[in-house]
Amino acid sequence: MYARLAALVSERTAIPTTERDIERILTAIPASADLWQTVDLAKCPFNQVVETVRVLAAEGLADVGETSIALTERGRALAAERNAVPRPSLRCTGCAGRGVSDEQLAEARRRFEAIEGGRPQPIETYDQAYVTTDTVFARLAAFADRGDLAGRDLIVLGDDDLMGVAAALTGLPRRVVVVEIDERLNDFIRQVAAAERLPLEVQTVDLRNPLPPSLAGSFHTFFTDPPDTLAGLELFIARGLEALAGAGCAGYFGVTVIESSFRNWRALQARLTGYYRVAITDIIRDFSTYENWGYLVGSVRDDLAPLRRAPQTNWYRSSLYRIETFEDSVLAAAPVDEATLYVGAESLLHTKRDSDVASS
Amino acid sequence: MYARLAALVSERTAIPTTERDIERILTAIPASADLWQTVDLAKCPFNQVVETVRVLAAEGLADVGETSIALTERGRALAAERNAVPRPSLRCTGCAGRGVSDEQLAEARRRFEAIEGGRPQPIETYDQAYVTTDTVFARLAAFADRGDLAGRDLIVLGDDDLMGVAAALTGLPRRVVVVEIDERLNDFIRQVAAAERLPLEVQTVDLRNPLPPSLAGSFHTFFTDPPDTLAGLELFIARGLEALAGAGCAGYFGVTVIESSFRNWRALQARLTGYYRVAITDIIRDFSTYENWGYLVGSVRDDLAPLRRAPQTNWYRSSLYRIETFEDSVLAAAPVDEATLYVGAESLLHTKRDSDVASS
Repeated sequence: MYARLAALVSERTAIPTTERDIERILTAIPASADLWQTVDLAKCPFNQVVETVRVLAAEGLADVGETSIALTERGRALAAERNAVPRPSLRCTGCAGRGVSDEQLAEARRRFEAIEGGRPQPIETYDQAYVTTDTVFARLAAFADRGDLAGRDLIVLGDDDLMGVAAALTGLPRRVVVVEIDERLNDFIRQVAAAERLPLEVQTVDLRNPLPPSLAGSFHTFFTDPPDTLAGLELFIARGLEALAGAGCAGYFGVTVIESSFRNWRALQARLTGYYRVAITDIIRDFSTYENWGYLVGSVRDDLAPLRRAPQTNWYRSSLYRIETFEDSVLAAAPVDEATLYVGAESLLHTKRDSDVASS
Repeated sequence: MYARLAALVSERTAIPTTERDIERILTAIPASADLWQTVDLAKCPFNQVVETVRVLAAEGLADVGETSIALTERGRALAAERNAVPRPSLRCTGCAGRGVSDEQLAEARRRFEAIEGGRPQPIETYDQAYVTTDTVFARLAAFADRGDLAGRDLIVLGDDDLMGVAAALTGLPRRVVVVEIDERLNDFIRQVAAAERLPLEVQTVDLRNPLPPSLAGSFHTFFTDPPDTLAGLELFIARGLEALAGAGCAGYFGVTVIESSFRNWRALQARLTGYYRVAITDIIRDFSTYENWGYLVGSVRDDLAPLRRAPQTNWYRSSLYRIETFEDSVLAAAPVDEATLYVGAESLLHTKRDSDVASS
């Protein structure tokens, strides 16, 4: 049964699906009544989870209600066959599993919280969705703990999270530069920088193009939160590498499983270590939590009733990577196919478009 | 000055050393009076740190005392030139930065603490040094949190940490097998398994040889703590991969920076993703802390006075990797050169032998 389910889901999603993926999704279903949380718990791409639930329902292994899904008795028996049990959480409650504390950044956080209410809201055009304030300051705590913030020059590539503002508020970096395409954000960040007298510059840059020469090769640290396709990840990270000043510099970025399977991670990792010749020094699981964004329902597939209802709690998470450069690292982007930048088989937006076509 | 220091250290250690490495070591020196802690803080290999301190001392940039080292005024000025400041710690104090809690494993931990006092002590022959009890249970918490312990079959390759005993005590895995070359450990583990009636088997195996066919392809999860040379890491990890039952299985292992530079990590990562075709899903920094072991002083270089004094607190740490397999992963070891298994330019044991030769 497992092999047949895996084959069906592989075929329908174009995402290679193993029997273990089916196991994981089976055990994630009873762990939450909320399909959005199930996606997060399964540690499989959204489209793979949704398609698996559809297949399980068609086989009488799961019941899909208006707002939730559940395994049938036969579904539970199938999980038991493999001794597959729900994944418990043993994350540290003090740091939500991130391993860092932002206590030392409390004053900056207080000021940030007074500012962030005025931020522009996320728009689909640029794949935006911003992270929680806990996440912003945990990221800065991680940068500082690894020696990449105090006294360093930081560039943020794409910044709907307002990482640049928060970093500058800590008073730790020597220089902070934000490059971003969205003028709404850039205006907001410029206003904040002026009002708060922050060492924070903003430039309007389309990251599909190389960085302005004045920024290339100038920074100790970059942060970016790329689109999760392989092309998107590579392009944003490579732009970050362009910004770095040689060996011993660091880059941070987020990668989800929700839109980028571990198989995709492998391809990215092979590319980073093999082509760009950087080392991966940290991968901190589920480090970043995103605030639910307004355009979600309607922009993604809705071929299960619970997907037509907005998530009740935050569900979208990414892991935080840190990479480090050497003298022989490649600090320039290889050419990228723009058509594959935002949408692939594992993207939230993918199947919506497919199913639109299929149903038309 | 930085470039000259980096060139000198590179030449003397055969470890490529960048100006940023010099910066890191410079800023780690004032952060602790204890040279062993300085090594941990610098996030550079032991031999690179020690050689840098020697070079700094020769240049009048550092003072080496009987028990500690310090920067001179000129040394501090050199650090200030680059705006290089000591790395603060922003790790979560609740979980020591590991991101997991072992609260749910408290009963197993209580039983483990009653047992571990009788363990055999580490010997140099097998590169042994065991981890703290906090580390043992944090590892199990991480395995459980990632869905790799409850109901799963676990193999531990090399086990002076007694991970197999601890895992079996949790009652979570279906099966636990330890393979280990040291008969002292195997006798101890067998006695414990019998006395505690644990689902725990032990086999005497030399990991330089392939796994016994009865164990190959049989497990969901492996754990190993390899020697830190590239050959040692690859061999132990590949033996772990041999033990796994195909796609969607997980492997865990520790890698230090103390004996394996980030440059070495890059080579390992390229090999894992490129040749073995697995994904790296987690790298948790400084996850494992090792109890100081009896044979340290005398087995490593002692060409600075503080190295002739045993560390006063635990200083040796490794990061925890998790990898995951796919249908196309290579679950068999490539041939390995045994001569490079335990000792390379970045090994603790390396320069002792070199300096013996140099001073004879």
